[in-house]
Amino acid sequence: MEKALNLLHDDLGRVEAQFGEYLESDVLLIRKVGEYVLASGGKRIRPLLLLLSARLAGYQGDRHIGLAAVIEFIHTATLLHDDVVDSAVLRRGAASANSVWGNEASVLVGDFLFAKSFSLMVRYGSLDILRVLADATTTIAEGEVQQLINTCDINLSEENYMKVVRDKTAVLIAAACQCGGILGGCDETQQRALSEFGLDLGVAFQFMDDILDYVADESEFGKAKGHDLAEGKMTLPLIYAVSRCSAEERVRVEEIIEKDELETGDLDFVVELIERTGGLEYTRERAASLVTHAIGYLDIFSQDVAKEALCELAEYVVSRRK
Amino acid sequence: MEKALNLLHDDLGRVEAQFGEYLESDVLLIRKVGEYVLASGGKRIRPLLLLLSARLAGYQGDRHIGLAAVIEFIHTATLLHDDVVDSAVLRRGAASANSVWGNEASVLVGDFLFAKSFSLMVRYGSLDILRVLADATTTIAEGEVQQLINTCDINLSEENYMKVVRDKTAVLIAAACQCGGILGGCDETQQRALSEFGLDLGVAFQFMDDILDYVADESEFGKAKGHDLAEGKMTLPLIYAVSRCSAEERVRVEEIIEKDELETGDLDFVVELIERTGGLEYTRERAASLVTHAIGYLDIFSQDVAKEALCELAEYVVSRRK
Repeated sequence: MEKALNLLHDDLGRVEAQFGEYLESDVLLIRKVGEYVLASGGKRIRPLLLLLSARLAGYQGDRHIGLAAVIEFIHTATLLHDDVVDSAVLRRGAASANSVWGNEASVLVGDFLFAKSFSLMVRYGSLDILRVLADATTTIAEGEVQQLINTCDINLSEENYMKVVRDKTAVLIAAACQCGGILGGCDETQQRALSEFGLDLGVAFQFMDDILDYVADESEFGKAKGHDLAEGKMTLPLIYAVSRCSAEERVRVEEIIEKDELETGDLDFVVELIERTGGLEYTRERAASLVTHAIGYLDIFSQDVAKEALCELAEYVVSRRK
Repeated sequence: MEKALNLLHDDLGRVEAQFGEYLESDVLLIRKVGEYVLASGGKRIRPLLLLLSARLAGYQGDRHIGLAAVIEFIHTATLLHDDVVDSAVLRRGAASANSVWGNEASVLVGDFLFAKSFSLMVRYGSLDILRVLADATTTIAEGEVQQLINTCDINLSEENYMKVVRDKTAVLIAAACQCGGILGGCDETQQRALSEFGLDLGVAFQFMDDILDYVADESEFGKAKGHDLAEGKMTLPLIYAVSRCSAEERVRVEEIIEKDELETGDLDFVVELIERTGGLEYTRERAASLVTHAIGYLDIFSQDVAKEALCELAEYVVSRRK
């Protein structure tokens, strides 16, 4: 991500400063929880994409900083609620907010971040941007509910899984790219290209997350290994493995995903199964081909430093180790 | 409320029909949970106030129906999250959504209702209305977090309690009134009058809720009696009683509000204390005087059927038994 980080060094600093201002509230706990989650080492992929897309579109103004902060606020709100729903104990290697301040505070501070995001967006005054982000937030909620329904469903198809990934993860990444384009005055074709770029990239991003959940070192990745499995989440590596394994193995997997807590040997069994059936490789290939496809959407933009940085960022998504 | 209900009979029917359309989603659980909560016998105070204010302001168009539905959506979202935070088992006499579908579904469907509200508002296209409702939603979240912090705080002052009531309850009621005015093209003075009317009325509404929590018949009020106390919530009747009781009684109250579950005799002790010190009477008087004050704000509007209905609705707030 070096190109992007160098290019946007100053802008990113301003975005970080903006968080503090936007967390202003008479209620100190809001600032405390908000700062805690925002400081916990997120990769700022969404702000980066918004800033790069705005630059690609030739935007010269000042509104990209606040909007980049807003999009990270929306993302942070979903993280707070996700961790409550998943009963997560860790987030990015540190104690999750709900494990420090309780589920109640996480639900309500998440609500604050959502609401504040809309308050701020109204101030920016673009109905186009409001529409894109309000619709994205609605779709995210639908994706999250669908994911909840899919919990422990061994019959979940790759297609239905893709739909959830698109809704709960990729749509906001697509919105980040599109909003950068809107700021820069892109026409509809260009906006759609940026949005499609973000959509493919977002799905690839989630696929890599799915892989990392099974292989990453906890201290590096910042989440407990096998967390998805423990939560009964069928992700692509496992969906693929289940489609290739024996009937006995499938029964064993079904038992495991339905357990409230994993027992010794469960994770090892599933990891071995996924490796043997090629589930990780398959997922990695899907991610890589999505990124290639994503980059294709940028063909309509002329080559410049912002486009190079966007492509590099896209490549990073499939090479990252955390 | 007869005047209001007669006057708005057709409009209210259209608002109810609108809920169904707005709950449209590929994810069936969203519709299920949404319909369940919306059908659970809410008084539709906020839609009523919005519709009456719009009529008072002479609004002739069609956008009031959708907006009235949206404001009930926002309210419903806060109810879903409230019940998770309060671990409520009952809501309006029936099982709360979280006790039927789990906290996870309540958090996420609440998020959907919030997000969908903003999506719909963007479609209505008025930045003024968006600003009022986005700011109100932000303030509600702040009020909810502050209420969480105040839990079990025997030293909570009436002033600080008022601030929470204003933020978490009254601001949305004020926004409903103001948005009706905006639709009808009210100038700023008129908008402010409607907003102040709603603010006082909203506080009075919460004060009556505080009383009903201690005195109402569960089967009529639809919430467990003494629920606030069990949750460690210091409400006005108790705040007043604590300011008038002996040191020993205060110690006993402190012990009770800190308990995870009430024991035999706890609720009776507190109810007796509140009655003896005049906490209910005091709260009722405060509510009544707020309603009188609220109605005063409507002086700048000429007398008509909508104004009469608004006044009657305001009087209902302090006379209601559930």
